[in-house]
Amino acid sequence: MSLVVVGSVAYDGIETPHGRADRILGGACTYISLVASYFTKVRIVAIVGEDFAKEDEDLLTGRGIDLEGLERVPGKSFFWQGVYSADMNDRTTLRTDLNVFADFQPKLPASYKNEPYLMLGNIQPALQQSVRAQMTAPRLTGGDTMNYWLKPEYRDELLATIREWDFLLINDSEARMLSGEYNLKRAAAKIFEMGPQTLVIKRGEYGAILFRRDGYFMVPGYLLEEVFDPTGAGDCFAGGFVGYLAERGFDLKDGLDLKNGRADHKELSRAVIYGSVMGSFCCEKFGVDRFRTLRRQEIDARFHEFRDFTGF
Amino acid sequence: MSLVVVGSVAYDGIETPHGRADRILGGACTYISLVASYFTKVRIVAIVGEDFAKEDEDLLTGRGIDLEGLERVPGKSFFWQGVYSADMNDRTTLRTDLNVFADFQPKLPASYKNEPYLMLGNIQPALQQSVRAQMTAPRLTGGDTMNYWLKPEYRDELLATIREWDFLLINDSEARMLSGEYNLKRAAAKIFEMGPQTLVIKRGEYGAILFRRDGYFMVPGYLLEEVFDPTGAGDCFAGGFVGYLAERGFDLKDGLDLKNGRADHKELSRAVIYGSVMGSFCCEKFGVDRFRTLRRQEIDARFHEFRDFTGF
Repeated sequence: MSLVVVGSVAYDGIETPHGRADRILGGACTYISLVASYFTKVRIVAIVGEDFAKEDEDLLTGRGIDLEGLERVPGKSFFWQGVYSADMNDRTTLRTDLNVFADFQPKLPASYKNEPYLMLGNIQPALQQSVRAQMTAPRLTGGDTMNYWLKPEYRDELLATIREWDFLLINDSEARMLSGEYNLKRAAAKIFEMGPQTLVIKRGEYGAILFRRDGYFMVPGYLLEEVFDPTGAGDCFAGGFVGYLAERGFDLKDGLDLKNGRADHKELSRAVIYGSVMGSFCCEKFGVDRFRTLRRQEIDARFHEFRDFTGF
Repeated sequence: MSLVVVGSVAYDGIETPHGRADRILGGACTYISLVASYFTKVRIVAIVGEDFAKEDEDLLTGRGIDLEGLERVPGKSFFWQGVYSADMNDRTTLRTDLNVFADFQPKLPASYKNEPYLMLGNIQPALQQSVRAQMTAPRLTGGDTMNYWLKPEYRDELLATIREWDFLLINDSEARMLSGEYNLKRAAAKIFEMGPQTLVIKRGEYGAILFRRDGYFMVPGYLLEEVFDPTGAGDCFAGGFVGYLAERGFDLKDGLDLKNGRADHKELSRAVIYGSVMGSFCCEKFGVDRFRTLRRQEIDARFHEFRDFTGF
């Protein structure tokens, strides 16, 4: 019962008010996988160039992540460079080199195809669709996307892709673009018509909202005293959300918690909390550094902290 | 055991994307009092001109609000006019006519002076201080302020005023201005040094945070499908917060819930929820209109709704 994760494994150049790093491990697939590995077995599908460092590979395998689906080809790995504003609520992309990612055609190893959980990190929708098509019958499929793929020229491709998803994870401005509705309740109603019956809207420092047709769940963002680097926080949210559901054997289609043999929609709310917990840890250090030392015990302690500061 | 409320009773001209009103009842004291009247007996201290309409007076007295401290003088009542942006997150003040408010010197009726609860709505800090000084020994004193009084020329006056308060209710940008700290946890730590040991930071559509030295409580904002007019929402939050504490006989100084004879800090969290509930109702109609029909039963139902969509 593993989770298959697709997306970018990349190198990032990051500058925040707290410091800079010229070239560190990054990419949506990397963040999602590292985080989900605290909850479940993870198998990744991605592509890297010859520059992919042994120490970065070791970080992933050290967390038990299966790299059979990590393609290595001649050339350089995807590179992204960005700089954050003083309050870190905005960032500017300085450089995006697709490199080996330009010709990525994800091919799933045979051993991956029967896995029940699939998380499609932000890449071109057609590639997400191709990965979904290679899976036999995933019990739970969901993914992320970004404003770039919401442009008119990609809209049909995106709509055809998310139609098959059980859940969609996007931020508030993307939910507004996708639905054409400013109000988030109305936006959710429109998005349900597009396929996904579970929608998680990420609101950055303000938390997240999970929408289902039968109700919604809201959580405020964790208050950090210091945000060092928000890069990857949204992907870590995704990794915590889907990782926890996979750990619990949750089946979103049937609304069943397979471990207990009964439906428990509160599991989705708890998954949102674990997503929030992992997003908050992500911001405490540069890049993926927090996940070099983080222990599951700290994760569960912060989950209980959420209960304390939101309960009344 | 009544709540004394001080602030402006005014007329507003409001334009939102949903409509406009040229001259409707408004003012911080009005909103706070109407809302708090669902929880406790309210007695107001304010000033109006000869133009104060009988029907507006009737709305207040109809909710059992004591107007003994409402001064009526020759001239016109305070008038404010503003227009909201398309997403209603910003508003521009078009006109502020102080009128009779310019010479307001609040004088408390003798019958008010021994009341245990005091809520100081946003007015000049010196006036808030003068009202506090006329009270014999309030058990719970708190108030609101705004960016205008955070300017250097009023800073000392404001600091001398809030030093005596048990709680301070402000929005996030004001907390940042007052403390000089961007991070809200750090801002709270600085503000505790200024006097108030309970700080409620209002975050508009994103909810609120209650800070105490021993911890904090967070709540997301209620999701409305339609925000007609956000005017007064912050004051309604204040009215729900302090109104509920007064109803419960809560004593913040000693940390005692007098009804139960023991400390229950969760009461403060519940007060934040009632504040959020009342702020959300306020936005559903223009001006104070929602409070012409709102029943306590609806308030409690929404309180329980908060439990449902935040519990996990």
